Amino acid sequence: MTTIQAFTHASFIYTGENIVQKDGRHLNVNDVSAIEDGAIVFNSKKIIWVGKTEELPIKYKKVKTTDLKNKKAIMPGLIDSHTHLVFAGSRASEFARRCAGATYQEIANEGGGILTTVKATREASVEKLFELALKRALISYRYGVRTIECKSGYGLDHDTEMKCLTVIQHLRKALPQMTFVSTYLGAHAIPHDQKKSRYLDDILHKTLPMVAQKKLAEFCDVFIDEGYFSLAEGERILRTAKKLGLKLKVHADEMQNTESTKLACKLHAHSADHLLKVSDKGIAALAVGNTVATLLPGTAFYLKMDYAPARKILDAGGRVAVATDFNPGSCYSLNLPLMMNFSALYMQMNLAEIFASVTSNAASALGLESSKGSIKRGYDSDFVVLPYERFEEIYYRMGW
Amino acid sequence: MTTIQAFTHASFIYTGENIVQKDGRHLNVNDVSAIEDGAIVFNSKKIIWVGKTEELPIKYKKVKTTDLKNKKAIMPGLIDSHTHLVFAGSRASEFARRCAGATYQEIANEGGGILTTVKATREASVEKLFELALKRALISYRYGVRTIECKSGYGLDHDTEMKCLTVIQHLRKALPQMTFVSTYLGAHAIPHDQKKSRYLDDILHKTLPMVAQKKLAEFCDVFIDEGYFSLAEGERILRTAKKLGLKLKVHADEMQNTESTKLACKLHAHSADHLLKVSDKGIAALAVGNTVATLLPGTAFYLKMDYAPARKILDAGGRVAVATDFNPGSCYSLNLPLMMNFSALYMQMNLAEIFASVTSNAASALGLESSKGSIKRGYDSDFVVLPYERFEEIYYRMGW
Repeated sequence: MTTIQAFTHASFIYTGENIVQKDGRHLNVNDVSAIEDGAIVFNSKKIIWVGKTEELPIKYKKVKTTDLKNKKAIMPGLIDSHTHLVFAGSRASEFARRCAGATYQEIANEGGGILTTVKATREASVEKLFELALKRALISYRYGVRTIECKSGYGLDHDTEMKCLTVIQHLRKALPQMTFVSTYLGAHAIPHDQKKSRYLDDILHKTLPMVAQKKLAEFCDVFIDEGYFSLAEGERILRTAKKLGLKLKVHADEMQNTESTKLACKLHAHSADHLLKVSDKGIAALAVGNTVATLLPGTAFYLKMDYAPARKILDAGGRVAVATDFNPGSCYSLNLPLMMNFSALYMQMNLAEIFASVTSNAASALGLESSKGSIKRGYDSDFVVLPYERFEEIYYRMGW
Repeated sequence: MTTIQAFTHASFIYTGENIVQKDGRHLNVNDVSAIEDGAIVFNSKKIIWVGKTEELPIKYKKVKTTDLKNKKAIMPGLIDSHTHLVFAGSRASEFARRCAGATYQEIANEGGGILTTVKATREASVEKLFELALKRALISYRYGVRTIECKSGYGLDHDTEMKCLTVIQHLRKALPQMTFVSTYLGAHAIPHDQKKSRYLDDILHKTLPMVAQKKLAEFCDVFIDEGYFSLAEGERILRTAKKLGLKLKVHADEMQNTESTKLACKLHAHSADHLLKVSDKGIAALAVGNTVATLLPGTAFYLKMDYAPARKILDAGGRVAVATDFNPGSCYSLNLPLMMNFSALYMQMNLAEIFASVTSNAASALGLESSKGSIKRGYDSDFVVLPYERFEEIYYRMGW
C-alpha cells in the first residue's frame, strides 16, 4: 500500500517554499522556488524526499522510478477553493437565451434562474446528485485539481441541504485521489417557498447543529448581499457556526459593498470570497488579518462586472487565492487554469502570485496549509506532473 | 473500408439545414433545425441517411449500430477556420512577464515577441515542427474540431515558409480523421533581417508561384495593417495569388481601420478576419458580398481590445464565422468552444448564429460549404457526438 516511488529529472520542481509566508503576510516575490532537474520520492500518502536528481540519496535508487527526461515539471496539486459542485438540472438553454438578449424577467417568468436549479436539486436522488458531481470532479481532476471545496446551497431547505452534504461524503469515498472540503452554504439565497425568518431559524437551530454533529461540513459560508442575507443575519449564522466548531467563509462584497469583507476578517474567517465591490476598509482588514481574499475572475467575466481589485489587495499586503466558482448560474466553468489565465491578463498578477493563488494561499483558505500547497517532505503527495517544462505554460494556454 | 454504420436515438441531430442560406445571405433565425430522437447512417467518408430513428429504413437495420439512448446529441464537426498552427518555440515566460507589467520594450530588448517565434521556427526541422503541430491538432480534435485551417507566417523567408506549408501536408497524411486547409501567409509581418521591398519581391515572384505550382496551399492571406502591409501591397499580393489559382483571405482592420475589409470583399476573398476596427463601409461591403466575416473573440480578449461588432455585421446581413486564431503571441488557445462562449457572452450572438459560426459559415470561409458544416446525405461523415443532450451545452460550459 505504501510502496515508495520516485520521479527523476523533472525539468523543474516548483516547491513554492519561498512564497509560503510564516506569518501569512505579503508575498512580494516575482518568482517561485524551483529545483531544476529535480527528483521527488513519495508514497501514496506523503512526500518523502525532494531535491536535485543528482543528489538523490542512494537508498532511493532502487525504488520504482519514472524518468521525466527534463521534459515535464512538477508542481503542487492545484486547489480549487470555491465551487458549488453539487446540484442537478441544466441551464444551458437559459444561458443561450440570456446571451442572445432575453431579459431576466422573461427567464424568471419561464421559471428560470436559480429556481430551476433548486427545484431540480430537491427532486434529484442522492445517487443522481452523486453521479453528476462525480463527473464534474473528474473533469476538475483532469485540469490538475487535487483538492476541491464543494458547497451545498441549492437545496434551500433542511433536507436537501443535508442531502447535498451527504453527496460530498460519497465523493470522498469514491475518489480518494482527490481531497474534498465540504462547506454548508444554507444561506445561499432566500427560498422561494419559505419566509426568510423561518428559514433563518431552520439554519440556526436545526441544520447547522445537525451538520456539526454529523460532521457533514468543515466550513460554513453565507451569502451577504442586498436581496440575500444582511450583515447582521450573516454575522449571526457565522457566530453560531463557529461555536459549533465550523470554520468560516463569506460570499462578501460581490454585487454591492456591504462591508462583509470586514466582517469576515473580524470573525477570523478563513476566506472572504468574490470581493468585486470590496472597499478600502475591507482591503485594510485583509491586509492585517489572516483571512484569504478568494477571487473568482470567471464570475466577473460571466457577469460583465469589473474584476476584483487583486493588485490593490496584494499591494496592501493581503493574500489572494483564485478559484473557479463553478456553478450553474454565474460561472459554469471547471477549468481552474483558465481562471489563472484571466488573473494574469485582467488582474495583473505575477507568476508567483498566480502560483500561490491556486496552491499555498488556496490551502490556507481551506485550513490545509500544513499538508498541501507546497512540495516538501511530509506534505501530501498529491502533486501534479505537468506535460511541459515550465509552470507558466499552464496559464499561458488559454482554456486547454 | 466503407463499412456502413449507424447511430440511433441521438437526443437531437443538429442538421443546420435551416441556416444554410442558398444565397449566402442573412441568417435571421433563432434556432437550428434539429431532428429529435434521430438516427444517422454513414460510412467512413459520407453521410448516407439521416432522419428520425423510427423512420430508419429497414435496409439499414442490420448495419453496425450504436444506440445513443437519447443522451447524446450529434452536430457537424466543428470547423476552426483561422489558426496559426505551425511554429516552434515557447512564449510562456514572456506572457507571464508581460501580464505582470513588463513593457513591450523590455520584452523586445530580450529578443521577445514575434522574433522569438520566427527564430525558433527557422531553426526547427520539419520533423520538430510536425511533432508540435500534430500535438496541437490532436488537442483541437478533442474539442470537437474536425476541420482546421492552418497558416504559415512564422518563417518570413522563402525556405521557412515552404517548410511550414510542407508540415501541413504531413499533418494531412498523419491525421486523416481531420481536414487540414493550408494557407500561405508569407505577408504576416515584416522580417527583421530583410527589406520589406525585397521580401515583397520574394513573395510575389518566388514563393507564391512555387506554392501554387506545388499545390502547397489553397489560400493566400495577407496582414494589412499599420506597420505591416499596406492596402496597396496587400492588393498586389492577393491579385497575384488569385491569378495563380489560390483562394483569398485577409487579416483585415484588426489594430487600425485600413478599409481592408472592403478590399477583401472587392477581391471576393472567402473571408475577412479580425475586424476589430471595421468601418460601416466595411460592414456594408460584407452585407452585399459573399465574403465571410471571421471573428476571433479570444484575440480581442487577450489584447484587451473591444470585440468585433458581430451584432452590427449580422444585423446588416453579413455572415459570421468564429475561430480561435491560435497563435503564440495574441491568442494561445486551441479551445474553439471557449470562443463560442465568448461570442455568446460578449458578441450577443444567438444560438443559431453561434452554431453557424463554427459549422456552415466556417465551411464557407474555407470553400467547403458543399461537403461540410451541415448534416445531410452526401456530406462528409465527420460529425461529432456530443456527450450531452443539447448543442448549447457546448458553449454554456466555459472552457471545458
